[in-house]
Amino acid sequence: MRKIRVCSTPELIHLYDLEKNIVVVTDIFRATSCIVTGLAHHITSITPVASLDECKNLQDNGYVGAAERDAKLVAGFSLDNSPFSYMNPDYKNKKIAMTTTNGTLSIAKSKPTAFQILAGAFLNISKTAAYLKSKANDVVIVCAGWKGNPSLEDTLYAGGLVELLKNDFEIADDSATMALNLYNEGKHDLNSYLAHASHLKRLQGLGIEKDIAFCLQHDIYDIIVGLNENNELVLVN
Amino acid sequence: MRKIRVCSTPELIHLYDLEKNIVVVTDIFRATSCIVTGLAHHITSITPVASLDECKNLQDNGYVGAAERDAKLVAGFSLDNSPFSYMNPDYKNKKIAMTTTNGTLSIAKSKPTAFQILAGAFLNISKTAAYLKSKANDVVIVCAGWKGNPSLEDTLYAGGLVELLKNDFEIADDSATMALNLYNEGKHDLNSYLAHASHLKRLQGLGIEKDIAFCLQHDIYDIIVGLNENNELVLVN
Repeated sequence: MRKIRVCSTPELIHLYDLEKNIVVVTDIFRATSCIVTGLAHHITSITPVASLDECKNLQDNGYVGAAERDAKLVAGFSLDNSPFSYMNPDYKNKKIAMTTTNGTLSIAKSKPTAFQILAGAFLNISKTAAYLKSKANDVVIVCAGWKGNPSLEDTLYAGGLVELLKNDFEIADDSATMALNLYNEGKHDLNSYLAHASHLKRLQGLGIEKDIAFCLQHDIYDIIVGLNENNELVLVN
Repeated sequence: MRKIRVCSTPELIHLYDLEKNIVVVTDIFRATSCIVTGLAHHITSITPVASLDECKNLQDNGYVGAAERDAKLVAGFSLDNSPFSYMNPDYKNKKIAMTTTNGTLSIAKSKPTAFQILAGAFLNISKTAAYLKSKANDVVIVCAGWKGNPSLEDTLYAGGLVELLKNDFEIADDSATMALNLYNEGKHDLNSYLAHASHLKRLQGLGIEKDIAFCLQHDIYDIIVGLNENNELVLVN
């Protein structure tokens, strides 16, 4: 039986042999929620980069620059880290370069060995699950977390994806079991369940409750997002 | 308010500033359960060492050598990793040198900076909680896990300790929130709740169900165990 595992923070990726695995990277608040939203709204591609310098360089070469540090837009870049900004029709058919505190690091660390990398969010969780079921590969869900530490919202997404896949995959580590149990406890009202989450408190200070409620919706987009050979996140057929 | 945090595996210890913190190391199956049992049964001290060589060296110098790798006794050492072995009256007033796959590493990694290190198990959870309440320090619970990965049983212990301390401490990271929620979901029957845990499956192959049931009992010993300045785990007054 295929295996599904959960890596609760990018700090633990070195413990996983990702070869032949499909890696699903998630950063619910808010990188991968923005990525999924943007591609659903016809942004052409989103190139994740690790540093502000790389992001600036691509911006100087015609990309729209999206740079977030500590949950805030970095001065000198045009696109902030709200999913609503990714719906702006001005960005339709544009290429975006993106760097974030946590999400892009998980992609960079998975890239050298993974068979394929997807970007997942609650917004497209069922479509992502259906795609994974259709493939023969083992799966590792990599939670972006917050500066190396596990975060509740990313763990809940991991648990939600395990829930959708548990009949087709063997749950192969305790992190996956724990994520599944937490998701099933919280799923009927994720917003309340997250009330004590540390990153949510951090974000509430920034007045983005609307973003949070948006990112916790299941299945409003019927798309799969993956990294192509040019390091671009694009729609996967 | 004092803070309580949970470090879900020793691989993440570098993210924590342990200065002025009391660190509670736990390795439920079975290192810290053995340590607490042994000290309750009048073993004088247990010296945790990282390598088999160090353990052998101390054994050659009059210590009882306890060495476990991959949940099994290593050839050439006398004391295995069952809590029942630590009740043997032959070891009364003896010094033990111990090395294990996961538990001793957590102690070694915490030692350079922590204010104090305790060894915790369900067997003495309430007494440990009372001690922590009586001190002014922040607390980090370090789960030994399994070869770098988080484990369900250690996370449940962490959640149990957070439950006992949550009125006196601020829950300061999502790992602590998650551990607390998992413990409260599983506490009425930890043995069944752990049925799908990967380490339990590993241990069941070794026929030690009796050890497992023993290690999940709360508060059969009324002692606190901590590391002294000679790197010995001893009773704390």
